[in-house]
Amino acid sequence: MKKILLLGAGRSASSLIKYLLDNAPAENWHVTIGDISVEHLQPLTSALVFADTLVFDVHNAAQRASEIAKADLVISLLPASFHIEVAHECLVQEKHLITASYVTPAFLDLHKEAQSKNLTFMMESGLDPGIDHMSALHVIQKIKEKGGKLLSFKSYAGGLVAPESDNNPWNYKFTWNPRNVVLAGQGTAKYIKNGEYKYIPYHKVFERTDELYVDGLGHFDGYANRDSLSYREPYGLHDIPTMLRGTLRRRGYCKAWNVFVQLGLTDDTYVLEGSEQMTYRTYLEAFMPPATYAGQPMSERLSKYTGLAPDDEAVEKIAWLGFFEETPVNLAGATPAQILEKILKEKWTLAPGDKDMIVMQHLFGYELAGKQHEITSTLVYLGDDEVHTAMAKTVGLPVGILAKRLLQGNITHRGVVIPIYPEIYEPVLEELKQFGIEFVEKEK
Amino acid sequence: MKKILLLGAGRSASSLIKYLLDNAPAENWHVTIGDISVEHLQPLTSALVFADTLVFDVHNAAQRASEIAKADLVISLLPASFHIEVAHECLVQEKHLITASYVTPAFLDLHKEAQSKNLTFMMESGLDPGIDHMSALHVIQKIKEKGGKLLSFKSYAGGLVAPESDNNPWNYKFTWNPRNVVLAGQGTAKYIKNGEYKYIPYHKVFERTDELYVDGLGHFDGYANRDSLSYREPYGLHDIPTMLRGTLRRRGYCKAWNVFVQLGLTDDTYVLEGSEQMTYRTYLEAFMPPATYAGQPMSERLSKYTGLAPDDEAVEKIAWLGFFEETPVNLAGATPAQILEKILKEKWTLAPGDKDMIVMQHLFGYELAGKQHEITSTLVYLGDDEVHTAMAKTVGLPVGILAKRLLQGNITHRGVVIPIYPEIYEPVLEELKQFGIEFVEKEK
Repeated sequence: MKKILLLGAGRSASSLIKYLLDNAPAENWHVTIGDISVEHLQPLTSALVFADTLVFDVHNAAQRASEIAKADLVISLLPASFHIEVAHECLVQEKHLITASYVTPAFLDLHKEAQSKNLTFMMESGLDPGIDHMSALHVIQKIKEKGGKLLSFKSYAGGLVAPESDNNPWNYKFTWNPRNVVLAGQGTAKYIKNGEYKYIPYHKVFERTDELYVDGLGHFDGYANRDSLSYREPYGLHDIPTMLRGTLRRRGYCKAWNVFVQLGLTDDTYVLEGSEQMTYRTYLEAFMPPATYAGQPMSERLSKYTGLAPDDEAVEKIAWLGFFEETPVNLAGATPAQILEKILKEKWTLAPGDKDMIVMQHLFGYELAGKQHEITSTLVYLGDDEVHTAMAKTVGLPVGILAKRLLQGNITHRGVVIPIYPEIYEPVLEELKQFGIEFVEKEK
Repeated sequence: MKKILLLGAGRSASSLIKYLLDNAPAENWHVTIGDISVEHLQPLTSALVFADTLVFDVHNAAQRASEIAKADLVISLLPASFHIEVAHECLVQEKHLITASYVTPAFLDLHKEAQSKNLTFMMESGLDPGIDHMSALHVIQKIKEKGGKLLSFKSYAGGLVAPESDNNPWNYKFTWNPRNVVLAGQGTAKYIKNGEYKYIPYHKVFERTDELYVDGLGHFDGYANRDSLSYREPYGLHDIPTMLRGTLRRRGYCKAWNVFVQLGLTDDTYVLEGSEQMTYRTYLEAFMPPATYAGQPMSERLSKYTGLAPDDEAVEKIAWLGFFEETPVNLAGATPAQILEKILKEKWTLAPGDKDMIVMQHLFGYELAGKQHEITSTLVYLGDDEVHTAMAKTVGLPVGILAKRLLQGNITHRGVVIPIYPEIYEPVLEELKQFGIEFVEKEK
């Protein structure tokens, strides 16, 4: 019997837990699910002899050691900053580890020791990072195998609301950590285009967007993510002239979000004076010039200050959120970003029955026998319901499949590893198809 | 005989050193000037029995202790981050201290101990901070004494080039630390206007400027400095409805500088790829969208991207700096801000014989007997030459005068003190007039 210790069983873990419990009898697994609160988990596991739950506090060193000691494999879905403590214990006790989070410099420091102890620390195993690597490399590998030369690789992904649950002018609801959505894009976006490095400061990121098209869904905006350049090495694309990674939103979202950025509403570095007395309207007002356009309707003042037409849909989107009304914010000692998050949560929270949607699109340009070719590879994936969301499934299922492959002895890469090798990712992509997670390729 | 130890004798110390040496015989002082390099100082002091120089390293604890032990008063013009080590030694040895730098939280922590040891740590004793406090409070005090109620206080200052040495389209040259000029305004500007708090994000600071007028010099732009709110308490203006502090530049400077901010050229947080191979033009190009307006002249592409008219003077200013030419930058591993600083230094350095100019303007609005009044108080001050610059004189002379007053026993405030008390600042303002440093007041 193999013992799996899953740490962190929040909302995003639902589909991973289901996968592990479904596979446990045939694979001869015992699954222990540890979380700071387990009441919601007990109905899932109480009738099962091969599973149990555990109140687990990652900051309790003794518990961390004793529980990891019993496991053959540890899966951490804890907040990313907690992984490193788990990893250190896994090294001491010589256990494999899987996470869905980015490899950090602190993890890179563990690579050699993990390798020397014959351990696999499989990182970036979820959706983004995770499925993005696997699905892109699947196509890149095919192009290389037939002798093609990659000229351009652009990749976009977004967690969105499904069309059937999309009933607001932003065409967006929170399907993931709202704070991350509010702070998204901060810093400088870096990419390469036709061999030239390009840098977009934060206040231009939501203005300099690309347009994308997805069959059956229509047009999307894509804005550049922070550092697209760091993926050249793991993808084996050292000399590629064009490379960009970005985030997808429905058309029009970025133009309206840019108004928040221009005003300064996404700043999380200082606390507003008297935030507890603010209304939506006075909050907005604090970021507008005092004298200019005074006396005119707020929508006109806003459009003039931000250079938009008064009837621009961006202004309508902001009006729909209630920004021109004297609704109390009720948040003391708050940063601009915290107030924005609170206002957005009022309107952008998934309602009961709402479904989410993952859209990922890769665009490849390559040269073969003197001719230019283009391939798009696109995933559109809808959640089942509010528990088994598209986000939970696309994050959890690849983690579960990689866990299975590792325990089966089918993964032999050791050290800190990400799923960029065909022998690792091809079986994962194949099994994901059983769950309907499948990219559609089109060659132009 | 009183012993003064002056630490830090860089360019900005010239006028303070002259003041100390001029006053030493009559005041019965002995002046020791300590700096990491003293060769340039020896001609000044070698013939004087009451002065000497000293190779001084602030990081040498033994030397710090032994030299401070011999002094009655320590003046530090070292870089601001070094003051705190000097201050700790002054506490141990029970010596007075004067600096021209801002009170930091670390200094506030020393207040009680300094007070209990009967010591004065006089901070913010130069121009800005220093003369700004003294000259503003001089007027505020007069308004209060006649029963006026302050409604508005705005204060602007700038270190500029004198009209007679002003021969470039920016009407600006570096008269102070170039790096600080490049990074100026970063963070969020905070102020209060008609009782409403206002916040300007960095990417709007150089757009939302005020217009000012100085007799004999014409119009200026003023951009808001970071935190105007923190001055309400020391100035005794807790409930003032309007308060703003800003920086002065010649008209048109801010609009052109805003192009750099919009592009992202002032970012000092990351290193550009291949900066050593960049030219002025490719550096600019790296911050522009790749495809848009391709093939058109760079000046047109830049004006379209930044929303300016092609013949806007801002574009001409940038052309004058050489940005559209393939001049090599020759700077490896550089941030955007470091390259911008290097390019600007080529054009904005004071030539031999060039004079600098300090302009400071306070604008007060107050109510008296039901009527609204306005006062402006303005300083325009030109340097003598490249050594005794207006900057060096306006920083050094108030420090020197405060040193004299302290050694004469005429300053009795103890602890960490800034010059905001009439009994401290009035004699300073009076003596500064002898050097031509005098504000002109106008009441409307």
